Amino acid sequence: MNDLYIGIDLGGTFLKAGLCDALGEVHSRKSIKTKSDEGKDLILSDIMGLVNYFKKKAENLGIIKAFGMGVPGLVDINKGIIYELTNIPGWKNVPIREILEAKTGLPCYVDNDVNVMTLGEFRYGAARGADNVIGLTLGTGVGGGLIINGHLYRGSTMSAGEIGHVNVEKNGRACNCGSFGCLEQYVGNKQIVERAIEKINAGKETTVLIDIVEGNLELMTPKILSAAAERGDKVAIEVWEETGEYLGIVLAGLINVINPDIIVIGGGVSKSGKYILKPVTKTIMARAMDVSSKAVSVVLAKLGGDAGIIGGAALAKEELPL
Amino acid sequence: MNDLYIGIDLGGTFLKAGLCDALGEVHSRKSIKTKSDEGKDLILSDIMGLVNYFKKKAENLGIIKAFGMGVPGLVDINKGIIYELTNIPGWKNVPIREILEAKTGLPCYVDNDVNVMTLGEFRYGAARGADNVIGLTLGTGVGGGLIINGHLYRGSTMSAGEIGHVNVEKNGRACNCGSFGCLEQYVGNKQIVERAIEKINAGKETTVLIDIVEGNLELMTPKILSAAAERGDKVAIEVWEETGEYLGIVLAGLINVINPDIIVIGGGVSKSGKYILKPVTKTIMARAMDVSSKAVSVVLAKLGGDAGIIGGAALAKEELPL
Repeated sequence: MNDLYIGIDLGGTFLKAGLCDALGEVHSRKSIKTKSDEGKDLILSDIMGLVNYFKKKAENLGIIKAFGMGVPGLVDINKGIIYELTNIPGWKNVPIREILEAKTGLPCYVDNDVNVMTLGEFRYGAARGADNVIGLTLGTGVGGGLIINGHLYRGSTMSAGEIGHVNVEKNGRACNCGSFGCLEQYVGNKQIVERAIEKINAGKETTVLIDIVEGNLELMTPKILSAAAERGDKVAIEVWEETGEYLGIVLAGLINVINPDIIVIGGGVSKSGKYILKPVTKTIMARAMDVSSKAVSVVLAKLGGDAGIIGGAALAKEELPL
Repeated sequence: MNDLYIGIDLGGTFLKAGLCDALGEVHSRKSIKTKSDEGKDLILSDIMGLVNYFKKKAENLGIIKAFGMGVPGLVDINKGIIYELTNIPGWKNVPIREILEAKTGLPCYVDNDVNVMTLGEFRYGAARGADNVIGLTLGTGVGGGLIINGHLYRGSTMSAGEIGHVNVEKNGRACNCGSFGCLEQYVGNKQIVERAIEKINAGKETTVLIDIVEGNLELMTPKILSAAAERGDKVAIEVWEETGEYLGIVLAGLINVINPDIIVIGGGVSKSGKYILKPVTKTIMARAMDVSSKAVSVVLAKLGGDAGIIGGAALAKEELPL
């Protein structure tokens, strides 16, 4: 019988889950729409429903050995505690492993979602075979995960990887974290859109953007900025180039310090991949040191919408004692 | 009999060496003045002289098990090759381990000097007992070394730790590395002094600095800036505060990404420790994220002038197969 692993990705609007084998292949998927404010107990019962669903699915496939979950927040995987979730209230200091293991009868492992995504890409996606990896998610915020010498690196208090809060403008925009000029304030979804609107309001020529949003700038999204760039819109192209440059400056510094084999960019904004990768790579080549910049490749994530599921399964497989 | 290790620190002007035991205690020291341009063969023969000196010294103390050396440049410790040394010509692609092992009959390990210093502070100095350490040397340049999960981390191509080349001013001063606004361009010896002179030339009030250098600004050094700060000179104090802030901004970002237990600051400028530590710590508290900034302490190196010797011995002990 095959060894199987359940991977679950807890997000603000969806609970995505899948049943994977030891090679990272997804044999069954199921998602549940959640409301972030529906409370912990309902989400836990949704998770139970998913686990039971996969237990049935597994009957002819193999044996479920463990279950791994990524959550958007601060977690101590060793203690099995969720300290706090971003944008999902009601999850302060929850002993998640104890709760889930009692309910499911399976070994359960819970980690930060960007760590989980990075591990998934490392084991089964774009970073297979690398030793040292920087994983990056671009979306509302900017998240990061690190693989060091073949293992997920979590730091001294499980809070490593906060690439979104590396400085990129010394005395720049105020950030939610309390600092100024953090990367997240220049490449987050909201900030990308704001920069485009500022440019239009300042009178920069835009041929396509205004058309697509039918004059209503409030409808602008990163997706629309990609579509406009595709059609040659100058404002959109400029915004993506600036975004890539900001990201490239921070990554150049991290390349000099961490000297990784590969940087994997995932998350929503990464769908605008080709508009970001080019200026990111150009900036890295111009700014990172010779030996390290030649050693690193910067690529888009491969696992796409399955990243959380496959990463969760990879976490379960990785953490389960042999 | 005790296990003993020879540690050697190859610098631009001195070859410092010592005989250490397994607890990092130095039982014998010897230094040789070198000229950076005296050539590889003369330096190798100086090293042989030191090794023979310590072999005699060891007779009643114990058995020399191995020898470790730190050098200012790019090294692959696994291959035993020095690719290039900074400011010491004639060392391109030298198979240093092979040469030294043939000459000394001892297992020889050679690594970058900042890695060696960081390892020494981790095993026997200010960072004992930590898991994750950022080591930093401040001097002409800014070097860095990383301990990750209790081991020296060298990166995918042995070039990790280049903290001096993390960006701190987006489009700032041109750096030797080809980039702009690197930390080294704001906290290196030369740059600190230049900033002080700029302030004086711009008419800022200085009560003591001008006195100390007897009106000749070309005589200014970081040491003089410390002495002036000690005596309350406003320009000197301002320069140290700015220096600490620049350093703190970069360290805050690295704290968010690496989440270390401790940051150890060594090197020449660190002798002005008290003028730097305060603004560094203040900036980190203001800018690094809560969990990680509370977890980290920033301290001055403990091993002082012995850092290279003790670090070299620590490297030898660490790398020698059990």
